[in-house]
Amino acid sequence: MDYQHIIDAVLSEKDVLSDIALKMYENPETAYNEVKACAWMCEALEKYGFKVEKGPYGMPTAIRAEWGSGHPIIGLLAEYDALPGLSQTQNTFKDPAVPGGPGQGCGHNLLGVATLAAAIGMKADLEKSGLPGTVVFYGCPAEEVLTGKAFMAREGAFKELDLAFAWHGSSKNALGLGMGGGLNSAIFHFKGKTAHASAAWNGRSALDAVELMNTGANYLREHMTPNSRIHYVYKEAGVAPNIVPDRASVWYYVRSLHRWEIDELYQRLVDCGRGAALMTGTEMEIEFQGGCYNTMSNKVIADVCAEVYPMVPAAEYTEEELAMADALNKTMPEYQVKKPEEPIHTGFIYKPDQYNISPGSSDVGDVQHIVPCMMVNTASQNILGVNHTWQTTCCAGNGIGLKGMLRGGIWMALAAAKFYRDEELVKSAWECFKKDLDGETYQCPIPKEIPIPQPQV
Amino acid sequence: MDYQHIIDAVLSEKDVLSDIALKMYENPETAYNEVKACAWMCEALEKYGFKVEKGPYGMPTAIRAEWGSGHPIIGLLAEYDALPGLSQTQNTFKDPAVPGGPGQGCGHNLLGVATLAAAIGMKADLEKSGLPGTVVFYGCPAEEVLTGKAFMAREGAFKELDLAFAWHGSSKNALGLGMGGGLNSAIFHFKGKTAHASAAWNGRSALDAVELMNTGANYLREHMTPNSRIHYVYKEAGVAPNIVPDRASVWYYVRSLHRWEIDELYQRLVDCGRGAALMTGTEMEIEFQGGCYNTMSNKVIADVCAEVYPMVPAAEYTEEELAMADALNKTMPEYQVKKPEEPIHTGFIYKPDQYNISPGSSDVGDVQHIVPCMMVNTASQNILGVNHTWQTTCCAGNGIGLKGMLRGGIWMALAAAKFYRDEELVKSAWECFKKDLDGETYQCPIPKEIPIPQPQV
Amino acid sequence: MDYQHIIDAVLSEKDVLSDIALKMYENPETAYNEVKACAWMCEALEKYGFKVEKGPYGMPTAIRAEWGSGHPIIGLLAEYDALPGLSQTQNTFKDPAVPGGPGQGCGHNLLGVATLAAAIGMKADLEKSGLPGTVVFYGCPAEEVLTGKAFMAREGAFKELDLAFAWHGSSKNALGLGMGGGLNSAIFHFKGKTAHASAAWNGRSALDAVELMNTGANYLREHMTPNSRIHYVYKEAGVAPNIVPDRASVWYYVRSLHRWEIDELYQRLVDCGRGAALMTGTEMEIEFQGGCYNTMSNKVIADVCAEVYPMVPAAEYTEEELAMADALNKTMPEYQVKKPEEPIHTGFIYKPDQYNISPGSSDVGDVQHIVPCMMVNTASQNILGVNHTWQTTCCAGNGIGLKGMLRGGIWMALAAAKFYRDEELVKSAWECFKKDLDGETYQCPIPKEIPIPQPQV
Amino acid sequence: MDYQHIIDAVLSEKDVLSDIALKMYENPETAYNEVKACAWMCEALEKYGFKVEKGPYGMPTAIRAEWGSGHPIIGLLAEYDALPGLSQTQNTFKDPAVPGGPGQGCGHNLLGVATLAAAIGMKADLEKSGLPGTVVFYGCPAEEVLTGKAFMAREGAFKELDLAFAWHGSSKNALGLGMGGGLNSAIFHFKGKTAHASAAWNGRSALDAVELMNTGANYLREHMTPNSRIHYVYKEAGVAPNIVPDRASVWYYVRSLHRWEIDELYQRLVDCGRGAALMTGTEMEIEFQGGCYNTMSNKVIADVCAEVYPMVPAAEYTEEELAMADALNKTMPEYQVKKPEEPIHTGFIYKPDQYNISPGSSDVGDVQHIVPCMMVNTASQNILGVNHTWQTTCCAGNGIGLKGMLRGGIWMALAAAKFYRDEELVKSAWECFKKDLDGETYQCPIPKEIPIPQPQV
Repeated sequence: MDYQHIIDAVLSEKDVLSDIALKMYENPETAYNEVKACAWMCEALEKYGFKVEKGPYGMPTAIRAEWGSGHPIIGLLAEYDALPGLSQTQNTFKDPAVPGGPGQGCGHNLLGVATLAAAIGMKADLEKSGLPGTVVFYGCPAEEVLTGKAFMAREGAFKELDLAFAWHGSSKNALGLGMGGGLNSAIFHFKGKTAHASAAWNGRSALDAVELMNTGANYLREHMTPNSRIHYVYKEAGVAPNIVPDRASVWYYVRSLHRWEIDELYQRLVDCGRGAALMTGTEMEIEFQGGCYNTMSNKVIADVCAEVYPMVPAAEYTEEELAMADALNKTMPEYQVKKPEEPIHTGFIYKPDQYNISPGSSDVGDVQHIVPCMMVNTASQNILGVNHTWQTTCCAGNGIGLKGMLRGGIWMALAAAKFYRDEELVKSAWECFKKDLDGETYQCPIPKEIPIPQPQV
Repeated sequence: MDYQHIIDAVLSEKDVLSDIALKMYENPETAYNEVKACAWMCEALEKYGFKVEKGPYGMPTAIRAEWGSGHPIIGLLAEYDALPGLSQTQNTFKDPAVPGGPGQGCGHNLLGVATLAAAIGMKADLEKSGLPGTVVFYGCPAEEVLTGKAFMAREGAFKELDLAFAWHGSSKNALGLGMGGGLNSAIFHFKGKTAHASAAWNGRSALDAVELMNTGANYLREHMTPNSRIHYVYKEAGVAPNIVPDRASVWYYVRSLHRWEIDELYQRLVDCGRGAALMTGTEMEIEFQGGCYNTMSNKVIADVCAEVYPMVPAAEYTEEELAMADALNKTMPEYQVKKPEEPIHTGFIYKPDQYNISPGSSDVGDVQHIVPCMMVNTASQNILGVNHTWQTTCCAGNGIGLKGMLRGGIWMALAAAKFYRDEELVKSAWECFKKDLDGETYQCPIPKEIPIPQPQV
Repeated sequence: MDYQHIIDAVLSEKDVLSDIALKMYENPETAYNEVKACAWMCEALEKYGFKVEKGPYGMPTAIRAEWGSGHPIIGLLAEYDALPGLSQTQNTFKDPAVPGGPGQGCGHNLLGVATLAAAIGMKADLEKSGLPGTVVFYGCPAEEVLTGKAFMAREGAFKELDLAFAWHGSSKNALGLGMGGGLNSAIFHFKGKTAHASAAWNGRSALDAVELMNTGANYLREHMTPNSRIHYVYKEAGVAPNIVPDRASVWYYVRSLHRWEIDELYQRLVDCGRGAALMTGTEMEIEFQGGCYNTMSNKVIADVCAEVYPMVPAAEYTEEELAMADALNKTMPEYQVKKPEEPIHTGFIYKPDQYNISPGSSDVGDVQHIVPCMMVNTASQNILGVNHTWQTTCCAGNGIGLKGMLRGGIWMALAAAKFYRDEELVKSAWECFKKDLDGETYQCPIPKEIPIPQPQV
Repeated sequence: MDYQHIIDAVLSEKDVLSDIALKMYENPETAYNEVKACAWMCEALEKYGFKVEKGPYGMPTAIRAEWGSGHPIIGLLAEYDALPGLSQTQNTFKDPAVPGGPGQGCGHNLLGVATLAAAIGMKADLEKSGLPGTVVFYGCPAEEVLTGKAFMAREGAFKELDLAFAWHGSSKNALGLGMGGGLNSAIFHFKGKTAHASAAWNGRSALDAVELMNTGANYLREHMTPNSRIHYVYKEAGVAPNIVPDRASVWYYVRSLHRWEIDELYQRLVDCGRGAALMTGTEMEIEFQGGCYNTMSNKVIADVCAEVYPMVPAAEYTEEELAMADALNKTMPEYQVKKPEEPIHTGFIYKPDQYNISPGSSDVGDVQHIVPCMMVNTASQNILGVNHTWQTTCCAGNGIGLKGMLRGGIWMALAAAKFYRDEELVKSAWECFKKDLDGETYQCPIPKEIPIPQPQV
């Protein structure tokens, strides 16, 4: 089959797409504040003929855009939020463009635009082939705080789909099978009674409560299932030593591989907090921040993606890009241990019989519990690159990132083309999905009463 | 006034009294097991013409014996229980008579007999003077576990009295004003769920619960009133590392200077336990051991005791006794710091304007919250002696202890003689008592449902 | 003896003195930043004929000013630093003049000027009487962080004196005998290794180290002498739950009644930190903040102060001042429990046979270990006033505070007059001082290598 | 190939073998005390013509016995120690033969004799075939404390071998590929200073040290590699609440999947102990109990074992045995959840592409790091049986266990026959072994200075 028209459709918009990605690099916006990015994406989607809804689901920086009609309905998951504190120039040493400012340290500017590229390619394919089928582009806010897609799902998104694609920038061209942790995020506030610390018997220390809750949580570690994790930091922990703190708080993540494990472990953690409140004569209040499902792969979609991957045009890097990737690699601690064979990955990794457990979380997991959904990766960083670092911010603003982005968009559109042409394949993806779920159904981890965060800009 | 008849009455029974004390030294019996001691005391009291009740208040090793009629009714508080693990011969180095066996390390053999001596002296005085008045001798089991007198009080003892005397062996001839800590004693049992420790997520660790309760208790220390104390040891703390312990327990003392402080602090400690149970998914059960009131002095009785003290015949020590005391002093750590001026104390200490807080507890405190009651001390150990040591056991079995014992008995009888002769003095003692209580009333710290321990012999 | 000339000398400058105090009320400056206060004080001292040194001992906001010659050399301890966050208008409800700004919540504007008033009175006395004797006025920065006088002492201050006076504003006219806690203040910084929290085995948590140090410190509480205290707050305690914190720190106060106790306890606390570093594979660095000696009274000086107190003119409050004091009293929690008999204290409290332990600290304690030095208090707040509250800031800016201030200055000058006239009295004060010290000698608690903080304005 | 002679050789000794196993069931001996078992085994080995060394390697209850000459030299690992507290009669409810006494709760009586059976079969095979080759039978003491084989290895055992077989009783006929945890075992003793708990500032609590070490260890859990485990119980934890404990100790297991992980984690745990000693002013002493390597499978040997398994004669159970297995199954908690399809397992489980991580440990791991060595399992318990339970003790004393034992012996001998006939197969096993080791070499985890435990009987 010839899919060149898909590739051509994307590459013809290469400059426009790159411009948007670079504007987002220059204007990084943190979770729930992606006002400009959202506007630029909507503008482009409209230009490309999509029916665009800006701010659906009660979320001002979300997008729902569609083109086409009939089944299969294939979704695309865009993200465009930046990370606090990761501002970086195009220098190959740590050099914030705005000291302390946010930056695209996870390359979500590329992620948003790769998805847009895929949408362009899929529309071109449906248009040319005349096949029935719909493209639904979701602009998903706030992946970095892991709650954007759960809020969207709570308000009705995604369940309309037959299947979905996501892409993320990476140091490798790769397809990974397996799971990643889901999580709950909550802040536990304790309220005690202040007193001069030299007469501390008159006080009830909220800080003691936080410390004892944490001690309890550390004892709990022995009694968690092996892939579960708890981590915390203090949010408020006393003002001056001579004052018994009447307020203190701690921010927790609870991670595990299944929602039921997260729910159960979270309840036990809440009991640690309740126990600490009892021990100290203080009161506890929980500020639930949200939660997300574990991520899952879909072997059927993955096989299709692997099949079409060879069609994705190889990236051609300039001398300058290669030199920059090389310089960035040299700044990575891993470089000391293992000098890489090439500065940017050019191969392709897919191990169909290896099923990995990865510790990290993404709210793509929520979508992956609603419809069959696979995330793919292309190299858009130096080969030793790691997300959430200044080096990755740097690559998100130059040709290394942009080339990976375009290849990612093309790849998703090529894989989608297979599904638009083969209803059985969609059925197989659903069978695989149901088998993997093993009876589990999606229940949004964020309760109804938690309001959707609004832009603070 | 001439009280020589009192002194003579006691000294004429010196040999009999010493024999009983030495039999108790040779046959040490621990708390609630004082079967022989109780029998010997009853036998002697009967011989001396007292009306004896053996085993009153549901306590087989308690005694209530009386002589005389009418007011004032003056009580005497005898004790005769030994301490586990303090067996000792008459050697001046640590040398248990029975390895691991109990011993009179607090000199309660002397305490019981000193009280008997006082009873003899008081009876002789009432007999000779023809004054109205009653002597009530209480044999009080189990002082060393601090609950004997509270059980007796719960069952009705002591409230019949006008006032009471107690004596305790000491390194000094002294009268102390002030307070000592009261306490609660309880064992906290936790019940969890066992599991192989390599799959500890299936288990709920009772040992974790104890450790977290203790951590909570250590944080609580900052928030206790300054004279409060908490201490604990583990009673059960796991069997083998590869088994999650489903049972664990910890034994706590809570001390403070007033019952209300103890009650409040104990409740906060219970909350630490409840909190730990919550944190660990275990269950807590409390085995309440009992409690006692803080000790108190009575300035009016103390002044009378100080007034009559010069009449108490001085002790005359043999060369051998002085040499032994000297040898024992040399085994005390304090000897390194401050060489004492004499091997056994011969002076008298009473500072009527100094009010001391002492950390130790005694169930005499319960009586001291029911009637005016003062404890006096005479030297019955080497001058650097400390209770609950093998050196003190040693002195409890020779002339050093016996001489102090007889002097203690005489002293109490002399002081009682003043009260038998002066009704106003009794009233003054009550005024002082009520002022010190400041409205507090006695509520037995051991709830009705706790059964009285029975002899395990 | 007639001391009216002393009182007249101070009262004739009443308006000038009040103006300076009010300027400092309007321009509160925090510890080590008392640039304006220092300048105004120097200006006034020069005007009154004192030989003034501005910024001695390497401390830009310190003052040393003297008048007269020969012995006795009597020192006066001025302070003029404000407290962060206690800004307040003249309203009788919490109403910051500058939100979040500093304020005279401990009334040090009054303290500085009361001392100046005393200096004027003492000079007038020496001048009129022609007696030998010297007045040394010390402007002492940074009492609120408890290190100003220790730095001054380290650099040679105070040891030139025969004795010294200090005054502090209070809710009562009072002379207190006894001791207050000295302290050490230090920040413990831990440095670990960051990692993604889901792969926390690659990290070493500095936050764990702080928590374990604190757990150790809470266990240490059982093993401290009864009047010792430890308190802490976190300074840095993690950023986001998914990052193992590589930096964390905790700020500790260690208090006790003697330097040797503080030094010993501080070393044990340092060992808790070292232990926590070992346990967590992190590194600890101590930022020692300084320390101060416990405060002490001097019974000889106190008796003299009590003797002259009746000469101090009574304060005459306006209707407005009484109404304000009444309104402020009503805002104090204590008001619910015990309605005061008068809005501002007019009596005088001195109990020559009561020796109190107070929990609070002051760097006046350092001076009190170098020369005999007594602190006196006059009412300069509403009768239920408490230092370090907005109510006290309020009083520091009106007639209530100013009248207390002038009375304080007069009182010190009157007491000094007695010592200028009686060499034996000075000797007695030294005998009392030496007896109280019991062989202890002053060793500045701040090591040589700690630099003196400089103004940050 | 016909291996019937091997099967016949074993089955002809069935009664003798069963008798020995039952004698060991009747006379259970705990770790290092296997005096009778060792004697009975030696007697039998001699009878069967083996050259027997009793008590080699300085271990009185160890055995080294051999038959044959030349390569391949194939080792057999016998164990025969019982477990404390697991005494049981042939009743199908918990019913200790000797209350509190030891029992064959891990079926090591069967294990020893199954190995003897294999030795008989292997000798018969070599004898009949005339092939070169040697059988080395190792009697290995003290598997239950996980140190017997490490001591043997330290003293030179096992390295002479070409490969080795082990068998263990199980609820299933199975071959498992994968790994199990290795471990270190150590008791940490702390020494402090006693004091009356009401004056605890004079004491240094060894119990505090243990608790703080444990708190540190619980914080460490977050920072361990995922398959690592730490567990502990207290050995000594205080006597009475009113005494500051000067002695306390805790017994730790540190488990992980590789020796380097164990060594590293153990050092970090030691640092937790050192840190706790620092925090509490106590001293720590480590009583190292020993350690063992993780267990490993060998795929080449496993494949051979799977190949010959069908030749092993099926067990024929009596009605009585089946009824007993059924009754025992009904006592297992799992029975409530999933009723088994048969009372005793008759199938065979081998999943050549599944590699499992098991939490449990065995000192067979030490041998498995010296030579290629595979452990096989046959059903010798009820199908829901679990080792270290009274149900397994029961089966170890009747036909269920004995039949499994004989089948295990035959199986090992059959597999050995393949290796005696195929030198290349031995080479392949070594290649697999070296690949699995990935460069790791065996270093005995028990230091030279730890003495070999001697029988305490």
